[in-house]
Amino acid sequence: MSLYVVFLGTAGSVPTPKRSLPAVLIQRKGEQIMFDCGEGVQRQMVKAKVGFHKKMKIFVTHMHGDHVLGLPGLLQTMALLDREKKLDIYGPPGIKRFLENIRETVQFVLTFPVEVHEIYEAGVVCEENEYVVQTEWANHVIPSLAYAFAEKPRPGRFFPEKAKALGVSEGPLWSKLQHGHKIRLPNGKVVKPEEVTGMPRPGRKIVYTGDTRPFRGFVKFAAGADLLIHDSTLDDDLAERAEEDGHSTPSQAAKNAKKAKVKQLILTHISARYEDTSKLLEEARKFFKNTQVAEDFMKIEIPLKETS
Amino acid sequence: MSLYVVFLGTAGSVPTPKRSLPAVLIQRKGEQIMFDCGEGVQRQMVKAKVGFHKKMKIFVTHMHGDHVLGLPGLLQTMALLDREKKLDIYGPPGIKRFLENIRETVQFVLTFPVEVHEIYEAGVVCEENEYVVQTEWANHVIPSLAYAFAEKPRPGRFFPEKAKALGVSEGPLWSKLQHGHKIRLPNGKVVKPEEVTGMPRPGRKIVYTGDTRPFRGFVKFAAGADLLIHDSTLDDDLAERAEEDGHSTPSQAAKNAKKAKVKQLILTHISARYEDTSKLLEEARKFFKNTQVAEDFMKIEIPLKETS
Repeated sequence: MSLYVVFLGTAGSVPTPKRSLPAVLIQRKGEQIMFDCGEGVQRQMVKAKVGFHKKMKIFVTHMHGDHVLGLPGLLQTMALLDREKKLDIYGPPGIKRFLENIRETVQFVLTFPVEVHEIYEAGVVCEENEYVVQTEWANHVIPSLAYAFAEKPRPGRFFPEKAKALGVSEGPLWSKLQHGHKIRLPNGKVVKPEEVTGMPRPGRKIVYTGDTRPFRGFVKFAAGADLLIHDSTLDDDLAERAEEDGHSTPSQAAKNAKKAKVKQLILTHISARYEDTSKLLEEARKFFKNTQVAEDFMKIEIPLKETS
Repeated sequence: MSLYVVFLGTAGSVPTPKRSLPAVLIQRKGEQIMFDCGEGVQRQMVKAKVGFHKKMKIFVTHMHGDHVLGLPGLLQTMALLDREKKLDIYGPPGIKRFLENIRETVQFVLTFPVEVHEIYEAGVVCEENEYVVQTEWANHVIPSLAYAFAEKPRPGRFFPEKAKALGVSEGPLWSKLQHGHKIRLPNGKVVKPEEVTGMPRPGRKIVYTGDTRPFRGFVKFAAGADLLIHDSTLDDDLAERAEEDGHSTPSQAAKNAKKAKVKQLILTHISARYEDTSKLLEEARKFFKNTQVAEDFMKIEIPLKETS
C-alpha cells in the first residue's frame, strides 16, 4: 500500500517563480491529506495532476494568508467540477469564520458537503480506521498547529505454515486471522491470530511543523517519524530574525530531527531570498544527514514497514 | 511614452498549467493599472517582474472568486515588502466588505493606504490628469463591470518654425505653448498655442469586458479602442452554454470588435477545455482579422498616436 508525499508549495510567505505558497499533500489509498492551503494550491494541484474528486482532508496550521488563502479558490473549483464527496477542513479557531466571511461576499454554490473542525486543544483531532492525525501547539507569532499523520499498526505478517500446522486450511479463515480476529475450527478448537502471525507492523508517520520556532513537546510529538517536514525559513546566520518572526533555521530543524530520531528530514517554507538553497542544506546536514530541501512537485514515497 | 498591456492570467474560472486566473496589467509611465485580480496574481507578478511598489490601481469586474481572490494575497505580499504608496481598488458593491471580511480573520498589517471605491453606476470612475477610466455594466450572471482606460488627447505637434515666425524664440515660452498655454511676448503680442501647434493628438484606449455576454451600450463604450480585451470563454458551437453562463464566444467578440471599430482584439478568459485555441482564433478571425488569443505573460505595446 503506497504512500506518497507531494510538495505542492514550498515558499515562505512570498511566492517565487519556482515556489508556490505552502501546501503538502499525502496520497494514500486514494485519499488525499493536505497540510496547509496557500494561495495557488488549486493550480499546483492541476499541474501535479492529483485530482479534485478524491476523498480529502485539509489541515491548516495557522491563519496567516500564505497558509490559508488557497482554500476559497480550491472550494470554488471543486464545486465547478461538481465534486460530490465531503471535504473535511481542520484548523485553528477562526477558520470557520474565515470561510463564512468569504462566502458572504464571494458567492458560489457548493456541490459537496464541507465540514470545518476548529481545533482548540492539542491531541488527536481525527481518527480513522487506519490512521490518526494528532496536533501539538507549535511556537509561531500567532497560534499555530503542528500536525502528525500516523498510521495505526498493521497486523503482523501471516505465516501459512503455522496456520496449516494448527489445522486451519487455506480459505476465508486465513483472512480472518490475518485481520486480527480469532477463529473457531469445526472441531471446536480456537485459534488466535497471534498464533499464526508475527508482531504487529508499525504504521508510517509524517510530521509537518507548519511555521514555528523550535517548540516544547516536539520530540515526543515527532518521535520516530518516517518523514519530518520542518520550517526552515531562514539560514543559521539569520537565527535572530527567524526567532523574531517565529521561524526555524536549518540547524534547528536538523537538531530537532536528530532528537526525535526521525528517518528523513525535508526543509520547507523557504524564504524567497534563497534561489540557491545549498547553504540551507549544508547547515542542516551538519546535524542530520538524511536531509533534503523541498522543491515544488517533489514527490517522496514512504515505504511500508515490515518490523518495528 | 510607452504603454504596455501584460496578460498575467488568461484562464476562465479554473486555472490550467499554462493559464492563471484573470488579471491584465497596463504599464504606463511607471504606473500600473490592473483589471481583475484572480488567485495567483502575486506569483504571476513575480514571474513577470512587474514590481509591487509602483503607483497602482486595481479595477475588479465582478465578485466571482476567480476574479477577486488574488487581492488578499497581493495586499499581504505588498505589506511584507513594505510598500508605501497608496493602492486604489475599484469594483462592484461588495468588494469593500470582501476585504474587510478577509482582514477580520486573516490578519496582516498594511504598510500603505488602501482606498476602496465601490462603483454603483456606469460612467467615469477615475479621472487623472492624463487619463480616465470609465465603466459600463456588462451582462454576466451577477453584476459585472466592463472597463475602458482612455488617455486624454495630447496637445498637438509643435511647429518651431511657426513659433519663430511669430517672434517666439527657443526657450521656456516654447514649452508653455507646447503644453497648451498662451503666452505674451515682451512686445505685448499674445501667441496662442493653436497658432504654433497641430491638432490635439488622440490618446490610447483599452477596453476590458470582464465576464460578459454581448451587452447593450458596448459599441459606444468600446468605440475606436486601440485594444479590446474580450471574454471568449467558449467556442461558437457552445454558444448556448456561453449564454447560460454569461459568457461570449469568439464570433460574438469579433463582431463586437468590428462594430466598435477597434484596432485590435484579444480573446481571453479561455476555458480550460481548450489546450489548443486555434478553433477560437479561426472563429473570431472570420469576423475580425486582427485578433489574437491571450496567453499568460503576453505583452502588447500600444503605440502613441500622432493624428486622429
